[in-house]
Amino acid sequence: MPDRVYLDWNATTPLRPEARAAMLAAYELIGNPSSVHAEGREARRLVEDARATLAAAVGALPRNVVFTSAGTEANALALSPGLKGPSGGPVQRLLVSAVEHASVLAGGRFPADMIGRVRVTRSGVIDLDHLKALLSDGRPALVSVMVANNETGALQPVAEAAGIVHEAGGLLHVDAIQAFGKIAFNINAVGADLATFSGHKIGGPKGIGALVVAEGIAGLEPVLRGGGQELNRRAGTENVAGIAGFGAAVRVALQALPEDAERMATLRDRLENGIRAIAGATVFADDVRRLPNTTLFTAPGLKAETAVIGFDLEGVAVSSGSACSSGKVQPSHVLSAMGYDAAVAQGAVRLSLGWSTEPDDINRALEAWRKLGNTLLRG
Amino acid sequence: MPDRVYLDWNATTPLRPEARAAMLAAYELIGNPSSVHAEGREARRLVEDARATLAAAVGALPRNVVFTSAGTEANALALSPGLKGPSGGPVQRLLVSAVEHASVLAGGRFPADMIGRVRVTRSGVIDLDHLKALLSDGRPALVSVMVANNETGALQPVAEAAGIVHEAGGLLHVDAIQAFGKIAFNINAVGADLATFSGHKIGGPKGIGALVVAEGIAGLEPVLRGGGQELNRRAGTENVAGIAGFGAAVRVALQALPEDAERMATLRDRLENGIRAIAGATVFADDVRRLPNTTLFTAPGLKAETAVIGFDLEGVAVSSGSACSSGKVQPSHVLSAMGYDAAVAQGAVRLSLGWSTEPDDINRALEAWRKLGNTLLRG
Repeated sequence: MPDRVYLDWNATTPLRPEARAAMLAAYELIGNPSSVHAEGREARRLVEDARATLAAAVGALPRNVVFTSAGTEANALALSPGLKGPSGGPVQRLLVSAVEHASVLAGGRFPADMIGRVRVTRSGVIDLDHLKALLSDGRPALVSVMVANNETGALQPVAEAAGIVHEAGGLLHVDAIQAFGKIAFNINAVGADLATFSGHKIGGPKGIGALVVAEGIAGLEPVLRGGGQELNRRAGTENVAGIAGFGAAVRVALQALPEDAERMATLRDRLENGIRAIAGATVFADDVRRLPNTTLFTAPGLKAETAVIGFDLEGVAVSSGSACSSGKVQPSHVLSAMGYDAAVAQGAVRLSLGWSTEPDDINRALEAWRKLGNTLLRG
Repeated sequence: MPDRVYLDWNATTPLRPEARAAMLAAYELIGNPSSVHAEGREARRLVEDARATLAAAVGALPRNVVFTSAGTEANALALSPGLKGPSGGPVQRLLVSAVEHASVLAGGRFPADMIGRVRVTRSGVIDLDHLKALLSDGRPALVSVMVANNETGALQPVAEAAGIVHEAGGLLHVDAIQAFGKIAFNINAVGADLATFSGHKIGGPKGIGALVVAEGIAGLEPVLRGGGQELNRRAGTENVAGIAGFGAAVRVALQALPEDAERMATLRDRLENGIRAIAGATVFADDVRRLPNTTLFTAPGLKAETAVIGFDLEGVAVSSGSACSSGKVQPSHVLSAMGYDAAVAQGAVRLSLGWSTEPDDINRALEAWRKLGNTLLRG
């Protein structure tokens, strides 16, 4: 598709050339990493190299990294009743922020009546006073808060949340899937007990993710059982090439991070200023710290579904701000949780930038928005 | 690794060139299949093409194919309490043959006290009289029987099992992971209600599998929840390249099947005759119908762990017959179930052939076995 502008990096990113190269190299290896012969040991080495890379990148020990099939599975694995740490748990209930990803809202293995929701502010930031209130009854809880929201880009006060959760004898899981590779992240700096990651959000392949646990966390219940892979925490033959590609993407993403983030933020600011100048548009959560690459906006009377198709016809790939699966656009649970009514929650458009976004892409997007603003809203 | 002989195809197969090409093509696409823009729709097309290919190959409808991260996840998804069909279920308990893969023995979402085991004969074939007896108390059961055993290669009477299970108001799941691509398989010919498949056993990539259900089966409980992917049966961004590679492998494997099977069977027979001529070796399950590519054998005093390493040092990759994960060799639960004692169950070696196995590979393997038979057993 020539001349397309791709501004939907939060949905999925292009595969990085380095990840692709690592996968091609992995395809040359025949072995199953569980086999003891030379072919098996070669495959094992690729898996363990990638494990060490991810562990070092986020401040964990390699043995505490569990590769999964994606972020969704990593979140399901993380949300495990009975988790305990050196100074918290075993957890008996789950508290999730109201703006978490659907795979966290689903609650993992916690029964529905053991799951509570923590409110967020109008800017989509977790309400720490509400978290304290919910924790105050004393039963140890697993609390799940994302590092950055995938729709608004709003950063969450995860380090403060960790302090509050630990004080109450609980454990903190952070979904770092959208933040990883876009801002600095270290499990120890945050004080998180568990953290989840996805390959395809940082330029690795689709179909690979990881759960990282802090040293001393026990009681993780596997989602997939059978073979003893991943130290009995995740059965199934390892996706060797996917893991190798993920590892390569981690290396490149973190190396490029400071420069990429600065460039994306500059372009994003220009994009937002341009958007606001048309059709009375407003940008959500623009009064709080956000990812450097994410803009969620609306305008009076805008319908996300029409807008996404309109942008697409103009050659610009964007997303509705809403949870979107199999082509069906639904009202954004994030905007609803932020207190916006259904009309607004169905009228948000997300533009997300990446490492190869160019100034001209921003021009093209603004040009498309100018046309759409005129035809959709005034036509 | 030059001059290596790879005879561990049942553990994992080399990636087929056609699968690799399909994956490379998929890597050119950026989109998330759930996105509505052109990039998303292109990715969606690849996924749906592969779904149609697998469905046609096994006699199912595309809408009844659920892609998963591997065979292990497909089995976990299949073993779902509450399944019901047009004429059976809802199932209240699970019966598995004693020679199933570890991911089936784990029982999916059935509690341990709701899982029964069906005996097998000395040749590793399910005892249908025992199955009948277990079913006779009337509570509808989900029964899980593999099409072919991964260690011995023994084919199971799955069509007869289907008749027995349905008569008792139950449902039949068949694990076709090891059989698929090695013998003809069609879900309707068997009469199976659910069937599971894995990409990397047929020359597709590691990290992709599928559950196929017969039309009219309801009550499948997702293992992974969150997004609405796979018609709400499996949440998580699709492994687009893995799915495309799987689809390509299905096409090639089934096209090549009749010829490959014949060639493998001829080589396998020559291999077995040679093995039996050395050190008093015997081949397991050689009195029943087996896959055309699998030989599990032992000899008096043989230790699998030593033998696998010995073969490896001679440049031949083989497997212990036992469940093997992370380099640890354990006694084979399959041989134990067949009535062999622990010494035998720890002394079996598996050689499995594939489409590129050459006569000279068999010569090399027999030469290695001659040396090992002399040194290991008489030295």
